[in-house]
Amino acid sequence: MAFMNRRDISFILYELLDAGQLARFPFYHEHSRENFEAILDVAEEIAREKFYPHNAKGDQQEPVLVNGKVAIIPEVGEALAAFGEAGFFAATQDGDRDGIQLPFLISQAAMAFFLAANPGTSGYAFLTIAAANLLATFGSEEQKAAFLPSMLSGRFFGTMALTEAGAGSSLADITTVAEPAGDGQYRIKGNKVFISGGEHELAENIVHMVLARIKGAPAGVKGISLFIVPRYRLNGDGSRGEENDVALSGLIHKMGYRGTTSTMLNFGENDRCIGYLVGKPHNGLPQMFHMMNEARIGVGMCATAIGYAGYLYSLDYARNRPQGRSPANRDAGSKQVMIIEHADVRRMLLMQKAAVEGALSLVLYVALLADLHKASTDEAERRNTGMLLDILTPVVKAWPAEFCLEANNQAIQILGGYGFTREYPVEQYYRDNRLNAIHEGTNGIQALDLLGRKLTMHDGAALSLLCVEIGKTISQASGESSLNEWATELAAALNLVKQTTGVLLAAREKVEPELFLANASLYLQMFGHLVVAWMWLRQAQAATRQLPAATESGADFYQGKMQACRYFFRWELPKIRHQAKLLSSLDDSCHAMRDNWF
Amino acid sequence: MAFMNRRDISFILYELLDAGQLARFPFYHEHSRENFEAILDVAEEIAREKFYPHNAKGDQQEPVLVNGKVAIIPEVGEALAAFGEAGFFAATQDGDRDGIQLPFLISQAAMAFFLAANPGTSGYAFLTIAAANLLATFGSEEQKAAFLPSMLSGRFFGTMALTEAGAGSSLADITTVAEPAGDGQYRIKGNKVFISGGEHELAENIVHMVLARIKGAPAGVKGISLFIVPRYRLNGDGSRGEENDVALSGLIHKMGYRGTTSTMLNFGENDRCIGYLVGKPHNGLPQMFHMMNEARIGVGMCATAIGYAGYLYSLDYARNRPQGRSPANRDAGSKQVMIIEHADVRRMLLMQKAAVEGALSLVLYVALLADLHKASTDEAERRNTGMLLDILTPVVKAWPAEFCLEANNQAIQILGGYGFTREYPVEQYYRDNRLNAIHEGTNGIQALDLLGRKLTMHDGAALSLLCVEIGKTISQASGESSLNEWATELAAALNLVKQTTGVLLAAREKVEPELFLANASLYLQMFGHLVVAWMWLRQAQAATRQLPAATESGADFYQGKMQACRYFFRWELPKIRHQAKLLSSLDDSCHAMRDNWF
Repeated sequence: MAFMNRRDISFILYELLDAGQLARFPFYHEHSRENFEAILDVAEEIAREKFYPHNAKGDQQEPVLVNGKVAIIPEVGEALAAFGEAGFFAATQDGDRDGIQLPFLISQAAMAFFLAANPGTSGYAFLTIAAANLLATFGSEEQKAAFLPSMLSGRFFGTMALTEAGAGSSLADITTVAEPAGDGQYRIKGNKVFISGGEHELAENIVHMVLARIKGAPAGVKGISLFIVPRYRLNGDGSRGEENDVALSGLIHKMGYRGTTSTMLNFGENDRCIGYLVGKPHNGLPQMFHMMNEARIGVGMCATAIGYAGYLYSLDYARNRPQGRSPANRDAGSKQVMIIEHADVRRMLLMQKAAVEGALSLVLYVALLADLHKASTDEAERRNTGMLLDILTPVVKAWPAEFCLEANNQAIQILGGYGFTREYPVEQYYRDNRLNAIHEGTNGIQALDLLGRKLTMHDGAALSLLCVEIGKTISQASGESSLNEWATELAAALNLVKQTTGVLLAAREKVEPELFLANASLYLQMFGHLVVAWMWLRQAQAATRQLPAATESGADFYQGKMQACRYFFRWELPKIRHQAKLLSSLDDSCHAMRDNWF
Repeated sequence: MAFMNRRDISFILYELLDAGQLARFPFYHEHSRENFEAILDVAEEIAREKFYPHNAKGDQQEPVLVNGKVAIIPEVGEALAAFGEAGFFAATQDGDRDGIQLPFLISQAAMAFFLAANPGTSGYAFLTIAAANLLATFGSEEQKAAFLPSMLSGRFFGTMALTEAGAGSSLADITTVAEPAGDGQYRIKGNKVFISGGEHELAENIVHMVLARIKGAPAGVKGISLFIVPRYRLNGDGSRGEENDVALSGLIHKMGYRGTTSTMLNFGENDRCIGYLVGKPHNGLPQMFHMMNEARIGVGMCATAIGYAGYLYSLDYARNRPQGRSPANRDAGSKQVMIIEHADVRRMLLMQKAAVEGALSLVLYVALLADLHKASTDEAERRNTGMLLDILTPVVKAWPAEFCLEANNQAIQILGGYGFTREYPVEQYYRDNRLNAIHEGTNGIQALDLLGRKLTMHDGAALSLLCVEIGKTISQASGESSLNEWATELAAALNLVKQTTGVLLAAREKVEPELFLANASLYLQMFGHLVVAWMWLRQAQAATRQLPAATESGADFYQGKMQACRYFFRWELPKIRHQAKLLSSLDDSCHAMRDNWF
């Protein structure tokens, strides 16, 4: 059973994003489309052979405590070993750190296969890579030497330990304390919750990246520091030493995403938990956000991949499940048709296709921006891609989390009663994907980030730049008869979003901040639909370029892109008009609602 | 923890629907508001004491096979015994059948408590009542005498056995066979799937209402007959006799709604399964639809009740969970506020309130129509309420199933990471509620029913009548300054739906049926929003009437109704404009999509 569409990945990488262009930068000069393909071959094979087969089992037999240890089905460790042996933990790292300087774009394309095959097992890899990147960016040479090689080979795994019971979305309120213990060491004391991969026996050690306050630090986010807190300390020779007083206080049982164990951890119950400060004191939040921004792209990819797996499953089902007849056929004795023959089933498939392929193109586009930002030798290009990356990060996290979940909802509906049973994978996809609107900053937090911060940063330069980029696509597409109608629609949508944004930003000076931000989530939805419509027009452009020379089956693929674009422009994009109207009126229905009226 | 709002039930019953009016009919003349209240007191208490406490347990410990028997946690049987002892199985039945001729309206209001407290356990009651009603309506006196008393006392339970593996939504294709065995008996042979409550030890006997074809019957739906097939035959004296060759071939494991066991049943594996024909041969489909229409109201109530429980839980959480500060407050040392202080949280609560209270008013209004249709002594009133009931049935089933599920989605989001864990009930609500868009005819089937059949029946009289009713509310509300704006909006929406319907029906003569019906689901959404907006305006009318004389806390309740109405009219109703445009253009994006383009 296909869980990811390699053809679509290739289309987006090469026909849409011209991934080969990255070879022009010194950092990526050893790469080429050929070796990208070889890497994706490996990813696809490992995902299919080692990740996909135990996706349901990992859900049904979630991690449990056995004699004080977290027991996980053996397939998880085997899959991650294969992932590590193929070099995926280290792939994006510098060559001098056993990496191959793989573009983030290609690593994300590879992750699409792993995440679609098995998000629960992939979670451990995702977290380890994120922790390693954080360490690689901000750690001292000594810290890197001690921990990175083991993390990049998959011997040590990593976590992100931010959340506390009293401080979920509000990191300003974390209370975990770090007390200087001399020699650059700190004694860590506090409790963390929702720590994914926080305890297990999959790796020799677990490297927790912990946010805590150094005693006497300022209140709020300005007093947060970042620490490396290993489960086991390291001996002088780098081998695993004694336990570091990090205690599991409980496993959290979730609705989905069960394969990735979620834990409550007590640091320093016995005052013996040692942490190593990363970088300067009180600099933890910006450091963590460096990781967080990358993780938000990863969450967008996860949502997309699970949505994609559900789409492909329900597509296959619709092609093979006979049921009913065409409305014109009154002969009850005639053969039933496959349900894909019903327009309403095609509607549910087309909705999914528009969502998951739109999301995939967006996530990979943003991943490309990260590469350009990192590797470009042109300062203006670095600055511009950095700004686009910043403004699109809330979108790339939230849009797939919302709409690819809705895609999974439609996948269940296509399977009908069967879709509601645990004999078919689509209900698990729906449960797994529900997490993505919550973690790494809820979608509501993304909305506040976009409207409250990203729009106005650098005097609105990021927004202007994005509008210029969208405008370029519009003017290119306007000259093409097959695209002209959508170019006009996108131009109208762009103007509407600009106008609405102008109204909001003007009001910002006059109204209380609560009212200005009250409808941020609606703004994010509107903005996201604009961006995804842009992605669809770009995909239609690429399809239009390729169609004349395509073979018959190749033409089917491109026709599918054209039709999904059409669907998005007709069924989805016009929804922003109503949203823009509500936003422009500074509608206060939610803001004015009072607690005691509920 | 509150799971249903008695105040809202009272508001809808008496201030909106004037439930007391039913006493004017002979059939209900013994009833009054006082005894309705006494019955709801009992329902609320049993729901709270006997149903609610094991809702999570019934999900976690779903029915399993133990030594060939279906084992169910004991609380389920205890709850249903209390339900039966209080007379709820029989409540709506005639007095000469141990019923108290309770209006369907009040029985549905009572069910709201049971369903919100525990949909899984309520499922057995729901099915038994539906099967008993079917038998009471179409069974012979002999059949009724044999089975009804035991079903109405809760000694026997019932099921609906329609679905087969090869015939889900397409009942025309069922293959279960009935062979005449003399003496009005038939030998039944065939396999059924997704039979809820199909096997268990909760009752002395299980009475399956089975659709099958008598040998030689015409193909399609015109050859389907309805049979009573008990799990155990009855002895001459009515006591339980030998087993009737109904074999459990498996339990189905579902995503949610786990408390109601779902089964695969083999009828007549040993050619010893006896069934009793209900009414005339080949009349099974209209008979079953009599039950189905009532069941569709019940499904709408189930979706509403689960949505309501999630709303109340997340409301309580939002009032008691401190997190973050107002955007204007930059003092990180200040106390965190309860999350209900955040406008985005109030948005998610208001969305839920608008959905679940809108749905509740709709379901109870439709239940009242059923009572008027049954009991009115005026022929025109009977005819008119019957037509309104017919045209609203697809809406009352599908709208709550879609939007109260979305309400549950928002409830999870309010709880954030906690909402995704199995420690809190909202994730179960989301899983349980996912079924309601699927069973008793998928939402897609409801859409075909509305657009393909209900709109045009009786030359469009039902639609005209509904428009007249909505028009009455509009003209009443127009004269009220607090309602005038919404009356104008509703009038515009009504005109738009009329116009759109006109365009579609005119096109029906010209285009192929596939294209005419292609966007039926979109039509149902538009139509549903119109109807629910109407319900909200009626609620706002009732609130406006009561506000002047209300106490302070009473006023809060009515202000909440006004604000939820405002939310619905501003945030939800305008969505139909885009839908109407797509529908009027006979958009063929989905219809024209081809299999090989996916």
